[in-house]
Amino acid sequence: MKVVLFALAGCRRGFFAAERANGRFESQARAGDTNQTTEERQPMDVANHQFKLAARPVGLPKATDWHYGESPVAEPGDGEVLVKILYISLDPAMRGWMNDGRSYIAPVAIGEVMRALAAGQVVASNHPGLAAGDYVTGLLGVQEYAIANGNAVMKVDPQLAPLPVYLGTLGMPGMTAYFGLLDIGRPSEGDTVVVSGAAGAVGGVVGQIAKLKGCRVVGIAGRSAKCRHVVEELGFDAAIDYQAEDVASALHEHCPGGIDVYFDNVGGDILDAALAHLARSARVIICGAISQYNAVDGMRGPSNYMSLLVNHASMTGFVVSDYGDRYAEGAREMAEWLGAGKLKSREDVAEGFDTFPDTLLRLFKGENTGKLVLKVAGD
Amino acid sequence: MKVVLFALAGCRRGFFAAERANGRFESQARAGDTNQTTEERQPMDVANHQFKLAARPVGLPKATDWHYGESPVAEPGDGEVLVKILYISLDPAMRGWMNDGRSYIAPVAIGEVMRALAAGQVVASNHPGLAAGDYVTGLLGVQEYAIANGNAVMKVDPQLAPLPVYLGTLGMPGMTAYFGLLDIGRPSEGDTVVVSGAAGAVGGVVGQIAKLKGCRVVGIAGRSAKCRHVVEELGFDAAIDYQAEDVASALHEHCPGGIDVYFDNVGGDILDAALAHLARSARVIICGAISQYNAVDGMRGPSNYMSLLVNHASMTGFVVSDYGDRYAEGAREMAEWLGAGKLKSREDVAEGFDTFPDTLLRLFKGENTGKLVLKVAGD
Repeated sequence: MKVVLFALAGCRRGFFAAERANGRFESQARAGDTNQTTEERQPMDVANHQFKLAARPVGLPKATDWHYGESPVAEPGDGEVLVKILYISLDPAMRGWMNDGRSYIAPVAIGEVMRALAAGQVVASNHPGLAAGDYVTGLLGVQEYAIANGNAVMKVDPQLAPLPVYLGTLGMPGMTAYFGLLDIGRPSEGDTVVVSGAAGAVGGVVGQIAKLKGCRVVGIAGRSAKCRHVVEELGFDAAIDYQAEDVASALHEHCPGGIDVYFDNVGGDILDAALAHLARSARVIICGAISQYNAVDGMRGPSNYMSLLVNHASMTGFVVSDYGDRYAEGAREMAEWLGAGKLKSREDVAEGFDTFPDTLLRLFKGENTGKLVLKVAGD
Repeated sequence: MKVVLFALAGCRRGFFAAERANGRFESQARAGDTNQTTEERQPMDVANHQFKLAARPVGLPKATDWHYGESPVAEPGDGEVLVKILYISLDPAMRGWMNDGRSYIAPVAIGEVMRALAAGQVVASNHPGLAAGDYVTGLLGVQEYAIANGNAVMKVDPQLAPLPVYLGTLGMPGMTAYFGLLDIGRPSEGDTVVVSGAAGAVGGVVGQIAKLKGCRVVGIAGRSAKCRHVVEELGFDAAIDYQAEDVASALHEHCPGGIDVYFDNVGGDILDAALAHLARSARVIICGAISQYNAVDGMRGPSNYMSLLVNHASMTGFVVSDYGDRYAEGAREMAEWLGAGKLKSREDVAEGFDTFPDTLLRLFKGENTGKLVLKVAGD
């Protein structure tokens, strides 16, 4: 797959291009039918199906937490585009967006179309930089059609990489891996880098970049097929199957000099096991805690955190939007690596818009290998 | 009190001048009677009382965890000094030294004299840099007399500062506050700095240094008298009495822009409350976790650690010996501040060698204000 630098010109504000104005969350995408009078906007003769948040989940999201509805598609206003969604990105962060409370981004409101990154094709445009037929990615929501501000979507070229790659390695998960590992982890040649969720969209990229930087890389994943994938296909030095092995003793075996960089996507027991094996001056990157997102009795903290004290180590958190002003830098280097065959991208493509609730659960059951996307319509 | 730079020439290895050789811990001080044959060393006609570790405590150390014994005082060997101990330092870290397991320093062995920093007077010297009558500090143990390598103690001048100050503000706790706050916390003028254990030996210094750096400083301490002390005597901007107030809402009130630097000495609920109020890019310094040291069901991790992710914040641990090669720098500046009256030192002096077990417990009951020391003999 040959990939060169893709255009970032269309996106000024990055993946989470949503702004809070006076405490109110302005979603970058909206459905055709919301808050629009017929005077303002003429509906098109096409139905738009949507999953809206019906209730805040307790534990794993269940069927009754969603409202599946239909509404007519509207026309874009000034500066807006109408996008036909082709692929919806399924990301662990979506679970957090469903909870109430202060976070890095406002919660999805009850009754609102579920927030999601997606890739699609422009059907109609009132934005000078975008034309019908262009392909874009953005925070378009779990629906078949979205109206979005043209400045808040990113134009992509499906000739350079398949659309799902723009939701994975060249999208939010790829940038998450790139900036989290390089900016916070600061790996040096010869460092031992451990990553959890190693077969996921972020973890697989983290390990591959660490290999490119000359590190020894150990992945932690569930099930032997995933472990084989990260070692045999992605080039990790070793993988630990947390469902079949004792993670603490496996880390001891695979990291005899301790862990210099630990990239955590999962939290819970695995974070604790990694903390217990830190090397001096280790850097722990807190990227996610998928094992805890559906906990009904609250988050569990890492009881081994005093290992930070013993080892003069640090634990630093981030979200990818922290690096919004450096996306172009990350995207350029990642595209070069992909184009040169130094980085492999793996997508796990589910089909059928109406399967969204069940497909989302695959993330939390650890059933995906690579970037999980839902194919909504043909390219 | 006028204090100028005190001599550090005698101490090459710092406070925890103990080295592991092939896994074996070589204590810097030893008792006169341990592992010495009468051929090697003639006992002096003086009794040395000692507290040895009899059992590893479960929870708070109890009377039966100690063995109080008497042995004759020996003479120093080549390069060694015999020190009459005048003040023993009581530090929260001592509780950790009593536990088995890998840490930044080897555990005190069962049957070994309890490890402690102490200040005393040289009685006999076989070290060229020290003479009888000199005052020194070092890791001398919970005993009345200690034999120490002369390179592993620090000569101090009681004319410049009282001996207990060399165990507090100019000693290990002072250096802990200095390097932890300045090197890890990196406070800038106008930052909001919060410190727990604010009336303790470390916390009181942290807050005063933060004030010198132009920060707004909020202390967290137990009991109103301690809160008055840190505000009225040490110059903190505000104090929160965690026994009488809801810490989370008090932090919300006193830190409207969030916490830029949180210096944690306590762990548990207070660490969680502070994490919930971090400002963007906050630095959390993990110096101790006194609320957890005696927990019988294991350490509790900070369940709000995902606040690090939301706020792009970091949590970094350290022990003072990490800064062993920079002690002179810290001691020089701290002595200047003390001499100029910019820094106040407060000691809490208990008396009577045999009260050691109970006096140590005062730390964990939060009964001390300032540096807790045990006066063993007159200067």
